[in-house]
Amino acid sequence: MRSASLAEGRVGLKHGAGSRAMRSLIRDVFVDGTPTVADEIGLAEMDDGAAIRLGDRWLVLTTDSHVVQPPFFPGGDIGRLAICGTVNDLAMMGATDIVGLTCGVILEEGFPLAELLEVRDSLRAACAEAGVRLLAGDTKVMGKGELDGIVLNTSGVALTDRVVPDSGLRPGDRVIVSGTIGDHGLAVLARRNDLGLGEGLRSDVAPLNDLVRLALEAGGSEVVALKDPTRGGVASALAEMATKSDVGVVLEEASLPVSEVVRSAAELLGIDPLHVANEGKALIGVGERVAEQVLAALREHPLGRRAAIIGRCVEEHRGQLVLDTGFGRRLITELEGEPLPRIC
Amino acid sequence: MRSASLAEGRVGLKHGAGSRAMRSLIRDVFVDGTPTVADEIGLAEMDDGAAIRLGDRWLVLTTDSHVVQPPFFPGGDIGRLAICGTVNDLAMMGATDIVGLTCGVILEEGFPLAELLEVRDSLRAACAEAGVRLLAGDTKVMGKGELDGIVLNTSGVALTDRVVPDSGLRPGDRVIVSGTIGDHGLAVLARRNDLGLGEGLRSDVAPLNDLVRLALEAGGSEVVALKDPTRGGVASALAEMATKSDVGVVLEEASLPVSEVVRSAAELLGIDPLHVANEGKALIGVGERVAEQVLAALREHPLGRRAAIIGRCVEEHRGQLVLDTGFGRRLITELEGEPLPRIC
Repeated sequence: MRSASLAEGRVGLKHGAGSRAMRSLIRDVFVDGTPTVADEIGLAEMDDGAAIRLGDRWLVLTTDSHVVQPPFFPGGDIGRLAICGTVNDLAMMGATDIVGLTCGVILEEGFPLAELLEVRDSLRAACAEAGVRLLAGDTKVMGKGELDGIVLNTSGVALTDRVVPDSGLRPGDRVIVSGTIGDHGLAVLARRNDLGLGEGLRSDVAPLNDLVRLALEAGGSEVVALKDPTRGGVASALAEMATKSDVGVVLEEASLPVSEVVRSAAELLGIDPLHVANEGKALIGVGERVAEQVLAALREHPLGRRAAIIGRCVEEHRGQLVLDTGFGRRLITELEGEPLPRIC
Repeated sequence: MRSASLAEGRVGLKHGAGSRAMRSLIRDVFVDGTPTVADEIGLAEMDDGAAIRLGDRWLVLTTDSHVVQPPFFPGGDIGRLAICGTVNDLAMMGATDIVGLTCGVILEEGFPLAELLEVRDSLRAACAEAGVRLLAGDTKVMGKGELDGIVLNTSGVALTDRVVPDSGLRPGDRVIVSGTIGDHGLAVLARRNDLGLGEGLRSDVAPLNDLVRLALEAGGSEVVALKDPTRGGVASALAEMATKSDVGVVLEEASLPVSEVVRSAAELLGIDPLHVANEGKALIGVGERVAEQVLAALREHPLGRRAAIIGRCVEEHRGQLVLDTGFGRRLITELEGEPLPRIC
C-alpha cells in the first residue's frame, strides 16, 4: 500500500486482526517516517513494547486496548485479559520487574454497574496474581449505541537489566511454546456464537511474568527471543519473529501441544489452532545448549506444565515459517486477516 | 452510593462528565478498598496521575482515553487532544521531564484512512511541539456500529525530582489560571451542533509542559498545587483542589479571563464558562510571596499571555469554592454531571 491509495481506503476488520493486514496498516500509517534510535526499541521496531535507556537499566513501556466480545467468557473476562495482556507484553520484552500499570475504562451509557464491579474485581484479582499494581486510571462514557459495552486500555511500565526482543533468533536456536495453543480464541468464539462445544473450552488468559522469570533464570543470555502468540496465533507470531530475525523457522507439527477439546472444536470449525489467539502463552527462542534446561524450568511452573520444544531455526527459508508435518514440509502463509474479530 | 444500590444501577453520561457523579463512581468502584501507600500518589489519591519512588526521583504515570465527538474541531482534533491531554496530566504532577508516551488506537470498521492519516499527522505535530516521543502503540478495530468512529488512549511516563499534587493549597496561597477559560468546550459544542456561533470559537488544546516548567522555575517550592481544568471546567477542578487541600478558595469573578467570543457564546447558550472544559490551561496554586513573579514568568510564554491571579485560599469555607462577584459572595456548587458529553 502506498500513501496515494492508502488515503482512499477504509479501515476493515482485518486491520485489527493481528496478522499481515494489521502490520501493513501500522507500518504505513504510524511507523512510516518514524525515526529509529540506535540501541532502542521504539515504534519502528513494532515489538511487544518499547525499551529505552534509563541510567544503566532499560525502561520498558507498553500499551494495549481490549475490545473483546463478549466481555465475559469461559476462563476469564475483559478485566483479567487487560491486566494479563499488558503484564505479558512487558514480560515478552524480558521485563519481569514491573513498576506499575494504568487502566483507562470506556463505558457505554447504560452498562450495568454490577458488571462493572465484576470487571473491577477481576482487574484486582489479576493484579494480585501477577504481583503488580494498578496506579492510575481514567473513566470515559460514550452514549447509548456509540460503543458496544466496555473497552479497557492498559499500559505498563517495567525496568530490566536486559531486553529480550522478538528479533533475536539465530540459526540453530530452538523455539519453545509454554503450553497448549488455541485455547483463548476458541473459548471466546464458542461463547460468542453459543456453539455448544461443551464446557471444556476455556481461555488460557494468565499473567506470564513469573514463568518468563523462570525461563530467564534457567537460560540466561541464551534466551534470545520472546513473543506472545496473541491475535494471529502462533503462526503470525512465529512468522513475524522469523522475518525480523532473518532466519527460517521449522515447526514440527507433531510437537505442538493442543488440548483434546481444542483439537476437536477446531476440526469441527475448520480452523487451524496455529492461527488462533492465545492469552497465556509465550514463544521462547533459546540456544540449543540450554533448551532442555529452560523446558524443565518451565514445566516446574503451573502455567508451563505442557511446555514443549516445537521448532528450530535454520539458515534456509530466511524470514519464513515452515511446517514439518512428518510426511513433508510446507510453508505456513500467515493469514491476511483473522477469522475472529474482537478476540482480545 | 453504597455497594448494594451501586450494583443495581447503570452507567450514565454524567459518570463521564468529570464532575461529582464521575468522582463518586470512580471512588465507589475503583478506589474503594485500594490501599494507600505512604509517600506515594496512587489510584486512591485520584490526582492527575500517579507518582512512585524510583531511586531518588519520582516516576510519574498517567493515562487518558479520548472519545471527543466530532474528532475534528476548530483549533484541534482527537490526535492533538490525546497528546496534549497526557503531556498536561504529567505536567500537572510537576513532571515536565517526559520519558515517553504510548498511544492505543481503536477504530470503527469503515473509518476513512484519510482521516486516520490526518490524526496521525496531528499526533506527530503535537509530539514535536511538546518535545515528546511516542514510543509504543496498539491498534484495534471494532465492527461497523460497535464504535462511533475513533477512540484514542494515551499514557505517559515522566521523571521528576519533586511532585506537585493537586492537594497542596494552604490558606494565604494565590490561584493562577494560565489563560482564558471555556474555549475548548464551547468550540467542540459549537462544531458539534453547527450552532453558527462564528469562526471565533477555537479549542485551546495545547501542551503545557514548557509553561509549567517556567512556573516551577519562577516559583520553586512555593508552587504548591497544579491541576488542569478539563472536564467540569475551572469550577470542578478548583472545588476538588479545595476539598483535597482542606482550604476555602475564593474566586474573584472580575479577574477570570474569558475571551469575548466565549463570553457571548456562553451567554447565548446559558452556560457558565466556569463549568466548561479547557484543554490548554493550568490552575497553579502558589505562595503569596511568589505569585507576581510566577505570573510574570507565565505571561512571557505564548500560552500564558492572558494568565491571571483569579483567587486566594482562606481558612474559612474549608473544602468549598466561593465566588466573589464584586457585589457579594456565593458558593459555587459543582454540577452533578456536565452539559457536554464526549468533550474530550
